Amino acid sequence: MPRIGDRIQETDWKKENPAPVIECTEQVKVEPAFEVKVSLGKEIAHLNTTEHHIAWISLYEKYIHAVGGYEFAAHGESTEGPNLGSVYFHHEVTAHLKIMKTGTLHTVAYCNLHGLWESFKDIHAV
Amino acid sequence: MPRIGDRIQETDWKKENPAPVIECTEQVKVEPAFEVKVSLGKEIAHLNTTEHHIAWISLYEKYIHAVGGYEFAAHGESTEGPNLGSVYFHHEVTAHLKIMKTGTLHTVAYCNLHGLWESFKDIHAV
Amino acid sequence: MPRIGDRIQETDWKKENPAPVIECTEQVKVEPAFEVKVSLGKEIAHLNTTEHHIAWISLYEKYIHAVGGYEFAAHGESTEGPNLGSVYFHHEVTAHLKIMKTGTLHTVAYCNLHGLWESFKDIHAV
Amino acid sequence: MPRIGDRIQETDWKKENPAPVIECTEQVKVEPAFEVKVSLGKEIAHLNTTEHHIAWISLYEKYIHAVGGYEFAAHGESTEGPNLGSVYFHHEVTAHLKIMKTGTLHTVAYCNLHGLWESFKDIHAV
Repeated sequence: MPRIGDRIQETDWKKENPAPVIECTEQVKVEPAFEVKVSLGKEIAHLNTTEHHIAWISLYEKYIHAVGGYEFAAHGESTEGPNLGSVYFHHEVTAHLKIMKTGTLHTVAYCNLHGLWESFKDIHAV
Repeated sequence: MPRIGDRIQETDWKKENPAPVIECTEQVKVEPAFEVKVSLGKEIAHLNTTEHHIAWISLYEKYIHAVGGYEFAAHGESTEGPNLGSVYFHHEVTAHLKIMKTGTLHTVAYCNLHGLWESFKDIHAV
Repeated sequence: MPRIGDRIQETDWKKENPAPVIECTEQVKVEPAFEVKVSLGKEIAHLNTTEHHIAWISLYEKYIHAVGGYEFAAHGESTEGPNLGSVYFHHEVTAHLKIMKTGTLHTVAYCNLHGLWESFKDIHAV
Repeated sequence: MPRIGDRIQETDWKKENPAPVIECTEQVKVEPAFEVKVSLGKEIAHLNTTEHHIAWISLYEKYIHAVGGYEFAAHGESTEGPNLGSVYFHHEVTAHLKIMKTGTLHTVAYCNLHGLWESFKDIHAV
């Protein structure tokens, strides 16, 4: 049976750029909230053009809960033609989470040409 | 390595209700567009309460392209208390697609308590 | 003070095409749910190209509640170049609502080149 | 004619908490990208419970372009009951934008009980 999980790609983000990267502390205390940064193209920037860009990044927690989502909607679109617009949104977002249990964060990013890419990060409640 | 695909659940939608169902023709002609219905709880309705509901359904095409998404935002929320609101959005949407190649549609639904559920449907271009 | 409402455009959808149209019964009974169709380009189809398309439609209820949202994610994007892809999602969606009070549905559509467009439809509970 | 803009509320965020706040430099240089922080409840935290929370914040640029969106999906939902879950997503996000023209950023936040709230911030390209 075809599973969508078989089509979510993973990669070594140090070499390639489409996979999202989660950066945060690994030792999570219940208070206060901790910062989570999700980005693409940490080493090599991902294209951000009208025709080829990251459209969104989603963040999930181990027990399959959706935690949050970020939509990148500005990639130089313009009535004057592709990539002539004056607004670009970089593929990086920082948020704040409170997680009270040891678990895993999963993130999935969607490239409009190359599809879904995933990565994860373990979190230890202390 | 933990993969998010391992956490996307599938089920027999005739027995249980959280998995989304794709309904459409299997013989797709290039023109005109064809109707695609995505729903949950076809046999047994899924709960649609402030505390427990389907938050969204996403639709993907075989080559990992995002095709569309539907957000269900009304589940009886109210300032008077949960489930006292006057607006409910049913877990069913009908859309129109044009697909020019044989492929597979994947759909993923998100239940705010029980996480991600998937199903698929093969499409044959004729 | 600049208000975003001043930048949401309206138009006569019989002449122009970017404004969304809500189609549904005006006499709403509490049971069963009623069908709501939201579409763009009813008379004249709106462009659906990689560079110029409707990215989403949102639906709100009078008392400012978000009811639902639809994302149109397939506009012919392809690794072979813009508009060479094999998947297109038409700018039309049909959903099912239950509304227990007389009110107004508002809809807002977002064109990636020409911004936000709105329309509305009154609903009478009987 | 009913306009959705008439239903988007504004408030003094120093006194009340539902309106989003945009924080960023006012002097924007074309390079590099600048940081934009969008948050709610800067002075007084907004509730973040299963029944009452901010569901999303959207960011728009003066010329009505959608710039980005953030979905807050974790508010303590749990199979054990509302507000017994272990994951909470705070109502604050930091992103990076490149804007090449003087303009205005608009932001709209959606509270699931009290609807749409807006604010804005002028940006000067130097």
